[in-house]
Amino acid sequence: MIIDKLYSTIEAKGHVCLGLDTDITYIPKWFLEKYPEIDEALFQFNKAIIDETLDAVACYKVQIAYYEAYGLKGLNAYHKTLRYIKEVGALSIADIKRGDISKTAEMYAKGHFEGDFECDFVTLNPYMGLDSIEPYLDYVKNKEKGMFVLVRTSNPGAQDLEYVELKDDRRVYDLIGEKIQNLGLNYMGECGYSSIGGVVGCTNVNEGALMREELNKMFFLIPGYGAQGGAAKDVAVYLKNGNGGVVNSSRGILLAYKKVEGGELNFAKYAREAAIIMRDDILKAIEK
Amino acid sequence: MIIDKLYSTIEAKGHVCLGLDTDITYIPKWFLEKYPEIDEALFQFNKAIIDETLDAVACYKVQIAYYEAYGLKGLNAYHKTLRYIKEVGALSIADIKRGDISKTAEMYAKGHFEGDFECDFVTLNPYMGLDSIEPYLDYVKNKEKGMFVLVRTSNPGAQDLEYVELKDDRRVYDLIGEKIQNLGLNYMGECGYSSIGGVVGCTNVNEGALMREELNKMFFLIPGYGAQGGAAKDVAVYLKNGNGGVVNSSRGILLAYKKVEGGELNFAKYAREAAIIMRDDILKAIEK
Repeated sequence: MIIDKLYSTIEAKGHVCLGLDTDITYIPKWFLEKYPEIDEALFQFNKAIIDETLDAVACYKVQIAYYEAYGLKGLNAYHKTLRYIKEVGALSIADIKRGDISKTAEMYAKGHFEGDFECDFVTLNPYMGLDSIEPYLDYVKNKEKGMFVLVRTSNPGAQDLEYVELKDDRRVYDLIGEKIQNLGLNYMGECGYSSIGGVVGCTNVNEGALMREELNKMFFLIPGYGAQGGAAKDVAVYLKNGNGGVVNSSRGILLAYKKVEGGELNFAKYAREAAIIMRDDILKAIEK
Repeated sequence: MIIDKLYSTIEAKGHVCLGLDTDITYIPKWFLEKYPEIDEALFQFNKAIIDETLDAVACYKVQIAYYEAYGLKGLNAYHKTLRYIKEVGALSIADIKRGDISKTAEMYAKGHFEGDFECDFVTLNPYMGLDSIEPYLDYVKNKEKGMFVLVRTSNPGAQDLEYVELKDDRRVYDLIGEKIQNLGLNYMGECGYSSIGGVVGCTNVNEGALMREELNKMFFLIPGYGAQGGAAKDVAVYLKNGNGGVVNSSRGILLAYKKVEGGELNFAKYAREAAIIMRDDILKAIEK
């Protein structure tokens, strides 16, 4: 099961999921002059970051929206980035948040678990129900693939639906969390977690402790560290016995070079430093 | 407002939204031999269908999953298909069902309302809340773009969340429908509908009549005709005074040629016939 690979990588390298949400404006001017083609600039920037951070992060999350924004060239950079992550033996999470049913979902599964855009994990959106998840399950069972399904996010709009109260007093995210965890029981790894994980945003300590307890078989993809405001102590609540989740940071790492005078010349080095600080920050918070 | 353009096109050409969910297996063998490159085969098949149906359908819905499934080449066919629909002056709905927030949603908006993948309408997923819709609104207001947000679908899995009862006795889809319609009030066209529409699957007559009444400012994208089992009389319930929605059919039209001995030689002609039958079928049902 792919989840065992992610679990053991975290044991060895810590909890950082480096988000390659690479906007063209994040790339230093000198680098854009060196790589005038946008697909090459995006890929080479990612490659430089990956080369510097391989031993310091657990996995890479590639946010496809940042590549779709640049059309076919952007998606060529997306393809090359995922292929490179695979070449260097790292784990990839394709943050695609797709959500559709039957034949359409089969096509998404084929598109992101095979071919040009092959990744290890995808993120999915559960709005249409469990039959929008099922077409991916054969890959989980037989092809060493996994997924993180949106459960509860930390954006203000989460109040519009995710936090809405149901007749049985639970909230929408409780219902989705339970359904996804139950589905995941058929795809458990030896590490005690399922290859069907959940996206759980970092909010307050009470909610975090409760979710960690109720969804104790679910591996968490936790966005919202750093740039989005989450701190290590908040994140630690979602990590059971020091594992059970990866913590994503994108801009906080990709743009670390901007905090240093002349940092753009060594942007990858500063990304590495930021990733290591984040990794150790989380490890310290867990030990407490 | 783009919705006025769609409304008047329906007045002139009927309610058919032709779904270009083009799987490679739908394309006749002789055509694949004529166009051995997959991107050319997918695009030329779509082009042949578009050329034959332009005067018989209101718009074309391109399901991006079918193109993502074939990677970069598939997306090149997707790009060429959308560009061709624009060239011939027809309206396109990009069925992408994206759902993400802030900067990420801005990138999706840029990716699908500009550049290689520019379309007239996108479909969106509301799970993460209204801030996953807002980044698209500037395009609606200033760039003649529109959207259809998932409200209620007709797949079995719709019971998992969309139909779940809330504390106030409404269902999730009622809540989402109301929120999306309220948001849409700021983007009303002269036709009496908003450029922010909803995806509403075709279910039973009672539900349909109630939704049409409650969401009377919302333009509907109605999937589920034909192949997915919906009939004209069921669809008519969702069309207020004969307009207010487009009805999607994909396989029922694309694969019409398979019902005819030797039909593959004139697949586009049989697609045209199927589209016209569907159009007239719906118009008759409305008159009743």
